[in-house]
Amino acid sequence: MRAVVMRNNQLVVDSVSEPTPGPGEVLVKTIVCGICGTDLHALRFAEALVGGSRRSGGIFAIDPNRDIVMGHEFCAEVVDYGPGTRKRFRVGTRVCSTPSLSRASGDEGIGYSSENPGGFGELMRLTESNLLEVPKELSSDVAALTEPMAVGFHAVTKARLEKRDVSLVIGCGPVGLSVIATLKLKGAAPIVAADLSLRRRELAVQMGADLVIDPREKSPYGVFQTGGSTRQPAVIFECVGVPGIIDEIMFNAPRDTKIIVTGLCMERDNMYLLSGLHKELNIQFALGYTGYEFADTFHNIRKGKLRLEPLITGKVGIDGVVEAFEELGSPGHHAKILVEPWRS
Amino acid sequence: MRAVVMRNNQLVVDSVSEPTPGPGEVLVKTIVCGICGTDLHALRFAEALVGGSRRSGGIFAIDPNRDIVMGHEFCAEVVDYGPGTRKRFRVGTRVCSTPSLSRASGDEGIGYSSENPGGFGELMRLTESNLLEVPKELSSDVAALTEPMAVGFHAVTKARLEKRDVSLVIGCGPVGLSVIATLKLKGAAPIVAADLSLRRRELAVQMGADLVIDPREKSPYGVFQTGGSTRQPAVIFECVGVPGIIDEIMFNAPRDTKIIVTGLCMERDNMYLLSGLHKELNIQFALGYTGYEFADTFHNIRKGKLRLEPLITGKVGIDGVVEAFEELGSPGHHAKILVEPWRS
Repeated sequence: MRAVVMRNNQLVVDSVSEPTPGPGEVLVKTIVCGICGTDLHALRFAEALVGGSRRSGGIFAIDPNRDIVMGHEFCAEVVDYGPGTRKRFRVGTRVCSTPSLSRASGDEGIGYSSENPGGFGELMRLTESNLLEVPKELSSDVAALTEPMAVGFHAVTKARLEKRDVSLVIGCGPVGLSVIATLKLKGAAPIVAADLSLRRRELAVQMGADLVIDPREKSPYGVFQTGGSTRQPAVIFECVGVPGIIDEIMFNAPRDTKIIVTGLCMERDNMYLLSGLHKELNIQFALGYTGYEFADTFHNIRKGKLRLEPLITGKVGIDGVVEAFEELGSPGHHAKILVEPWRS
Repeated sequence: MRAVVMRNNQLVVDSVSEPTPGPGEVLVKTIVCGICGTDLHALRFAEALVGGSRRSGGIFAIDPNRDIVMGHEFCAEVVDYGPGTRKRFRVGTRVCSTPSLSRASGDEGIGYSSENPGGFGELMRLTESNLLEVPKELSSDVAALTEPMAVGFHAVTKARLEKRDVSLVIGCGPVGLSVIATLKLKGAAPIVAADLSLRRRELAVQMGADLVIDPREKSPYGVFQTGGSTRQPAVIFECVGVPGIIDEIMFNAPRDTKIIVTGLCMERDNMYLLSGLHKELNIQFALGYTGYEFADTFHNIRKGKLRLEPLITGKVGIDGVVEAFEELGSPGHHAKILVEPWRS
């Protein structure tokens, strides 16, 4: 099959062998698959990601010296069944799934794996029991956003929001936008969002932000200033993932702030912990989601509770992926670019 | 009055003017006052402490260019009353208090202040309504431990312990020992403690640790390893406060660990955040205590629920303070050294 292959820290379009569905598994055709910021990281920082993952029991157990077909935000179509399956869905049924295979020997990643190709290739294998059927009224493009939306859903769950919390989202890339949409869904108010890009601030408003701030014009942390003696509790979502951003947030956060770190900062970072102590801050790291959160997010999208069309800012065929990675490397214009691997 | 004065980043014994009790305030004679690790930090890193405090709204609003009489862990004796007091206690009554004055213009620190001398001087002023009477059966020495014990009490409260949590205390200085004693009091089990010093590990056992570990012999984090598939949730108390220790803890902590940071690390610190993300760690900074927690700790000590005598590893007169600071600077032998400022 044709696929975008990560090989020697570069992306190339090539023919690779087709995956075979094992027991309880399904062969699917990728309809569409989103490009994730983590894919960009994996390409650029493969060694650091693997090293960090290995020493902390993470999921990126990849071997950068072998071919990898990435892509873990997908909507696909059932093509064939492996042995020991219940054949729950007719061939041609559109499905979503968490990007993981549930095997007797343990879970295996799809996309960040040399064994299990992801959605930047024409075919994948998925675990039958993980499949969620995409109903007629839901487009494949929007269904493919389930995965990144589940990331935001999980981050907001980790924040254990309380009624009076003021939420500030630093960074309005796909994760930040997903956090904003989930905050809106959960009734959080006010939702404040900051990003350097006008386009992304506009998307933040479409996702439900009550106030958007260009940090070059004024400090986003000003929203926590109060003239009186009462102060609302603050929750700050760090959705940037560059060195120095946590220090900036700790410096500016009010007392007792919960800081939810979702950004994948690959380098060592440096901070002044005294800010944390004086203000008794809480830092909660958040990564991924549970199977339940994925299904819950899918349900919310299916019921039309999340309006996600504006997030899709580009679509490319298989030959456009390299360029799309480059464009996403200097953010500003894009939120989510989708790949349709069966077209050039 | 005679006092140990912090002057030009050095400690000297000198005569300074006596404090005058204002409205609602009481003049007291210091019976005994403990030396705190923060006092050592204040002497060594005054500029950093003040800078960090200023930019984060902390309590160390001191001017290192003016004389400061430190000492905030005290037991004292009522000598005289200022105007507008209820004169609740007879002259001679022994009392404890949080080291702060409650004034109409706002709270003011005692000890970390050029205006309000602390317990390394013969006399202090305290707010009458903050006084807790020390009963006959409670020694002044142990009563003076209320303050450092309240710090541990607060840190444990911040940890929001759950029933199955395994607690690991890294560092068995006064704060670590206070955390251990509080964990024991609250029925936490098991309590594991690590320190390089044999003496401190012995004290940890006396405070209630179930298992003590010399990190040169084996990794304290090994207690979280499990042969089976179930794992108990972990809480790690960081009671060291040197650069690198949080990175070490993040590297070794199991998934979902709550890390309670109590150590006062004055320098910028450096860490690898990927460990935090992969394992979804939570970092809670904890500093100080509330007035309620102070009173609750005092109550527990008064009722004999905490056996603190072993923590007192030294006592000095006013002329012994400089040497005591030096000894505490290279820990290992001592937990708490008490100062009796009325004797030489």
